[in-house]
Amino acid sequence: MTDGTSHPDDSFHVFDTTLRDGAQREGINLTVADKLTIARHLDEFGVGFIEGGWPGANPRDTEFFARAAAELKLSNAQLVAFGATRRAGGSAAADPQLAALVASGAPVITLVAKSHDRHVELALRTTLEENLEMVRDSVSHLRAQGRRVFVDCEHFFDGYRANREYALAVVGAAHRAGADVVVLCDTNGGMLPSGVHEIVADVIAATGARIGIHAQDDTGCAVANTLAAVDAGATHVQCTANGYGERVGNANLFPVVGALELKYDRRVLPAGRLAEMTRISHAIAEVVNLTPSTHQPYVGVSAFAHKAGLHASAIKVDPDLYQHIDPERVGNTMRMLVSDMAGRASIELKGKELGYDLSADRDLVGRVVARVKEQENLGYTYEAADASFELLLRDEAQGRRKRFFTLESWRTISEQQAGGQPGLAAGGGTAANEATVKLWAKGERIIATGEGNGPVDALDRALRTALEKIYPQLAKLELVDYKVRILEGQHGTGSKTRVLIESAGGNGSWSTVGVADNVVAASWLALEDAYTYGLIKSGLEPQE
Amino acid sequence: MTDGTSHPDDSFHVFDTTLRDGAQREGINLTVADKLTIARHLDEFGVGFIEGGWPGANPRDTEFFARAAAELKLSNAQLVAFGATRRAGGSAAADPQLAALVASGAPVITLVAKSHDRHVELALRTTLEENLEMVRDSVSHLRAQGRRVFVDCEHFFDGYRANREYALAVVGAAHRAGADVVVLCDTNGGMLPSGVHEIVADVIAATGARIGIHAQDDTGCAVANTLAAVDAGATHVQCTANGYGERVGNANLFPVVGALELKYDRRVLPAGRLAEMTRISHAIAEVVNLTPSTHQPYVGVSAFAHKAGLHASAIKVDPDLYQHIDPERVGNTMRMLVSDMAGRASIELKGKELGYDLSADRDLVGRVVARVKEQENLGYTYEAADASFELLLRDEAQGRRKRFFTLESWRTISEQQAGGQPGLAAGGGTAANEATVKLWAKGERIIATGEGNGPVDALDRALRTALEKIYPQLAKLELVDYKVRILEGQHGTGSKTRVLIESAGGNGSWSTVGVADNVVAASWLALEDAYTYGLIKSGLEPQE
Repeated sequence: MTDGTSHPDDSFHVFDTTLRDGAQREGINLTVADKLTIARHLDEFGVGFIEGGWPGANPRDTEFFARAAAELKLSNAQLVAFGATRRAGGSAAADPQLAALVASGAPVITLVAKSHDRHVELALRTTLEENLEMVRDSVSHLRAQGRRVFVDCEHFFDGYRANREYALAVVGAAHRAGADVVVLCDTNGGMLPSGVHEIVADVIAATGARIGIHAQDDTGCAVANTLAAVDAGATHVQCTANGYGERVGNANLFPVVGALELKYDRRVLPAGRLAEMTRISHAIAEVVNLTPSTHQPYVGVSAFAHKAGLHASAIKVDPDLYQHIDPERVGNTMRMLVSDMAGRASIELKGKELGYDLSADRDLVGRVVARVKEQENLGYTYEAADASFELLLRDEAQGRRKRFFTLESWRTISEQQAGGQPGLAAGGGTAANEATVKLWAKGERIIATGEGNGPVDALDRALRTALEKIYPQLAKLELVDYKVRILEGQHGTGSKTRVLIESAGGNGSWSTVGVADNVVAASWLALEDAYTYGLIKSGLEPQE
Repeated sequence: MTDGTSHPDDSFHVFDTTLRDGAQREGINLTVADKLTIARHLDEFGVGFIEGGWPGANPRDTEFFARAAAELKLSNAQLVAFGATRRAGGSAAADPQLAALVASGAPVITLVAKSHDRHVELALRTTLEENLEMVRDSVSHLRAQGRRVFVDCEHFFDGYRANREYALAVVGAAHRAGADVVVLCDTNGGMLPSGVHEIVADVIAATGARIGIHAQDDTGCAVANTLAAVDAGATHVQCTANGYGERVGNANLFPVVGALELKYDRRVLPAGRLAEMTRISHAIAEVVNLTPSTHQPYVGVSAFAHKAGLHASAIKVDPDLYQHIDPERVGNTMRMLVSDMAGRASIELKGKELGYDLSADRDLVGRVVARVKEQENLGYTYEAADASFELLLRDEAQGRRKRFFTLESWRTISEQQAGGQPGLAAGGGTAANEATVKLWAKGERIIATGEGNGPVDALDRALRTALEKIYPQLAKLELVDYKVRILEGQHGTGSKTRVLIESAGGNGSWSTVGVADNVVAASWLALEDAYTYGLIKSGLEPQE
């Protein structure tokens, strides 16, 4: 066991509680292996403390600390065990819950304590003085066991407003008993930054304790509340990766660290780690099995995406005009969205992003702009379909679309016999979806039929069957996402339909788009682009 | 045209820019019909101003203002047209862009102006003095045309830090020329609340102008930045529904209004509207075809959700312990995650809303709750499909679904011959979509075939042809909107599909839902509900 007080730079704490408080998020259910993986990511990012759970209270958390001791080699972070102050009327030395915290082997322990007078009476059902004694006794006991102790004051801000003297007494008791940090928790998440600033400043002035902040995001201000506490003198911030947490969530680690490093110019991570932020955010989302938020500050794929033509021409002059930081500092990249607002400037930038230098060929850029406008009038959108845009660019550069295969015809048939709901396998009905494609590839005429869960699925299977003999590279190609948008929503089922398909292969993933008067035809166009792009990515060049 | 200055309570402005700045969000592409629908939702919510777009610069926006003048009856909001100051070296009176703003008929005009010295030089390529003259001339001209004018100072905060005197000069010029509000825009979104507070306070002290705030969310602080500006004296907040906007997004209307109403105790909406917030947030998400964020403050389905354990028992003692406001104040509900989904109370309330008093029949409520859970597990959602929910309620009350017609089978065939893009009528190809339905109605077996733009359209036509002879009431039924969402997006084209159909007849409009493994089958289910509900609305009762 290491002594928690020897952490290299202790002047400011980035404390992560993804594994404990973040795991309260609806839809998250972590295994011990997940928790170990996330801990490795957080350590690599460079947080100072990783709160791993509540050993003793939760068998999975007990196992986590046991496995962490054996398997986790942390290079930056210290592991923290979470628990509560001893029970009312007992003694810390005899408290089994505190014993489990010590047994976890964690060098640092966070103790949650009540600081709201009403909660002491309603929830703990003890006296205000006994609650203070529980704090003093528990902190002293753990200090005597050689552990560093942080005290989380639950519902602190509401408690302060209800009974300032008592809330301050809890902070003072923890501080004097040897807690290194007293953390003020906005447990309901109802605070706004101005209130946080005022209260944190008062607590520091009144108690002299080192203060931390734990903010929930129920007002949408958790990041700002965390920073307001720092402005007022707090030197310990509790956050979760991607803001995971109960209800709306917790203060999001990434924008908090982004602001501290880039806006406050305060070094809170080891050198070079900030540029890992985007990758680590996405990696943790993968582990918890949630799609990374596209619009997350700093790390979302849209965080540095630009759409408006107005902006694009300005960005060519000076990228700083429309981005608050250089995205590379957080490991993200600027993206130009090709849309109907796009002009020449954004097409050139987009080409550059895809590896095509268009600056020398004004003519080509003009043709691409015209073609994009024409297609967008039909309902196409390229901002979410980079692969279709790249094919369009290639078509214009080559003067025509070169093909791996040429369609003769396709047909889909969907049938439903009564007695059941089609596709849901309820009742005694029968449903069937079948597709046939006829096409030419490498001089050969191919006819293939596929069955599927719906007409589009059947079409995909038919196309795959037809082409796999000639292009075995397609074995790796997989459709991973499929989106349908009905355009001009005032024409009912006769509307135009846009389909976006995301595909993946050995070489990453790519998105394609198709627009037609109906969903099957639009899907065919998006599939055709998806297969074509996938074959190009696998190193082939279309010849026909 | 109304005079913009006569708005009932002008002391504080809730200004919505979903239709202009919000539409910059990656993945949003609004039709004119979408924009009109969103404007109706925002007006119902009670915002004071709805910025509709940039007439003249964008044909779709020009059409929006023309149709808004003819079709939109706003009861709270005033419509705002957005544009730029006149071009350098010209005159406002002769500026075609300003003329288009006037021609839009909007009573209020927002003019974007440069306030950062470097941008004037780099992007406008004119002198600092000419930029001031452009502001004065443009504002005076529009005032002389009887319009109320707000001036958006783009990049204000960066500009202020680069050249405070010049940034203040722009504010002063706009103010003295007659702009009612000068809006400080954090265009890059790089600000934090403390900086916003300090700068807004200084601008108000130095210029005496009425100040507004427009915050982008790149630091994750847009809501807090908006509130910091209000703390410093701003009385006009620009926001977007659900925080839609370029890059990370804009200040989210809902938590801003939530904080103003519930934390500041400031009435910024007409009485009773705050409780519509959750419903309107979700309705707007449906229109823009984005899944509502489950973790959005105040309005997300998880915003008041509690995992079992520590909190659940505390909540039984006192719900305020773990929620910062009563969720009913914003139209949301507390959810205990142990007992998923809809509870009895919300079903009873929903029934009441539809005209069914369920309070007396506890058994029926229990059956409906169970059925809704079962259906939601399959992917159904009744939030946006009241008609399907009402049919479900009737089914449970009657013990079974009574029918106007009974399906025997349906079949759709879609075909495409090469040479053209199917459905787009380009080139020499041929496309065909055909559907056949076989069904029983009033003892008669009917077979009908329809052709359409796609399989679903063909199915709708076949069903209509089959039934119109027996139920002439259907002549009035029309499908007005059709939306498709793919659920469980990780299974490609084999995913489950949810279809929402909005129908209209002589008696208003209604929404139905269908879920199946494929789009045609899901559409059939939604169509079946749509026709059934339409016939009930026309006064018939199903007998079979």
